[in-house]
Amino acid sequence: MNVLLVYAHPEPKSLNGSLKDFTVKRLEDAGHTVQVSDLYAMKWKAPLDAGDSLAKESGERFHPSLDSKHAFENGLQSEDIASEQEKLLWADAVILQFPLWWFSMPAILKGWVERVYAYGFAYGVGEHSDARWGERYGEGKLAGKRAMLVVTTGGWESHYSPRGINGPIDDVLFPIQHGILYYPGFDVLPPYVIYRTSRIDKTSYPAVRDALGERLDNLWTTAPIPFRPQNGGAYTIPALTLRADIAPDETGFAAHVA
Amino acid sequence: MNVLLVYAHPEPKSLNGSLKDFTVKRLEDAGHTVQVSDLYAMKWKAPLDAGDSLAKESGERFHPSLDSKHAFENGLQSEDIASEQEKLLWADAVILQFPLWWFSMPAILKGWVERVYAYGFAYGVGEHSDARWGERYGEGKLAGKRAMLVVTTGGWESHYSPRGINGPIDDVLFPIQHGILYYPGFDVLPPYVIYRTSRIDKTSYPAVRDALGERLDNLWTTAPIPFRPQNGGAYTIPALTLRADIAPDETGFAAHVA
Repeated sequence: MNVLLVYAHPEPKSLNGSLKDFTVKRLEDAGHTVQVSDLYAMKWKAPLDAGDSLAKESGERFHPSLDSKHAFENGLQSEDIASEQEKLLWADAVILQFPLWWFSMPAILKGWVERVYAYGFAYGVGEHSDARWGERYGEGKLAGKRAMLVVTTGGWESHYSPRGINGPIDDVLFPIQHGILYYPGFDVLPPYVIYRTSRIDKTSYPAVRDALGERLDNLWTTAPIPFRPQNGGAYTIPALTLRADIAPDETGFAAHVA
Repeated sequence: MNVLLVYAHPEPKSLNGSLKDFTVKRLEDAGHTVQVSDLYAMKWKAPLDAGDSLAKESGERFHPSLDSKHAFENGLQSEDIASEQEKLLWADAVILQFPLWWFSMPAILKGWVERVYAYGFAYGVGEHSDARWGERYGEGKLAGKRAMLVVTTGGWESHYSPRGINGPIDDVLFPIQHGILYYPGFDVLPPYVIYRTSRIDKTSYPAVRDALGERLDNLWTTAPIPFRPQNGGAYTIPALTLRADIAPDETGFAAHVA
């Protein structure tokens, strides 16, 4: 199978760097083909702007989504964007690996999402009507592919527990797992999260690495998070609220998991 | 009073651009002094990397937090970072204005947070002991200042309602309002959110603008979101979970609001 690893850490000799190298080897040893988008090494351009379209003339008003649509439809996207879209279409599974900085992904990876997720590619796809609200949240160009987060954080696991001060890790990651991965169609596997990274040393590293190895071995068989498909009947359209008979007493992120 | 507006939109002739200009004028007309960090206009460097410290020698291993600490303590931060920290210390209130892209702030603004929020400035501040876990979540160098988000989104208000498919807006913004603003000490005001931006035209714009104007007029009197202070007794230390008698039946982000 084909795996794309999108990786965002500035230091190769870091815990993240070691785990990235381990991931590539583990997957290749199992017979898979791996491509790595090492965003810092690539000097990935983070800000979405008018330069993302080859067609943009200076002085014209820039519209982030409409200009993205025009560039995507007319083969006028900047080459770095088109190349990453090709990798996504090639992949059977995509892994996003990053340190959790300020409760989200690093800016350089956020900029990868904003620029690669073009209008017509990752959003603005499909029919909008009384019965469907585009192909998103369970449908879309990336449907049938798997995705998984590999995340490191300095905080303790208890800080991210159901009553932990940072909020539950599932909720902290919801905007990424549901809003960025499930949105264009990925089946999203439970994340692999490493806590309290400052305490990881030569003695404790092998256990962390081997647990990741198991997750990689099971990439094709692990059950995805059962997010509710938007157009499967659970939501009213166009309000896109859960129907009254679906999880009637629930609100918030958890209500969108069956 | 002094207000810092940190603004992240690539097009001056956008809805966001109009609201930014309006905000500056409204505050100045009320006698306040305003500084604007227009991140796209400043060509703000988004990725946090070894270049953020003037001391870094090439070839050395880069450690994001320890190198940030060293640079902050020794006056070795890159000039753009130090300058933004000065603005934050100068401000009585800070407004972050941005379009919601993929359920979070634009990459360029995330990179502002990551680089300006140095170790010793926004985190790693204060005593860590059995009684206190640093000065954060209600304490810190930015305590006593107010902060507010001004956010635009293409989605409908119902999509961000308690049972809306994108998740409740309060939960979507929690990692920013609690994790980025409350963390270093800001009192965080309820956000001003504009939904369904594609429908805003010359007829509907004045109402949107005037509602923002009212929020700006009330910047000093609006009650902040009552997040629970970390060291105020509601949390066990060091697990940092809510004490059993505090909101005993609640879990998730909402449990951290009194």
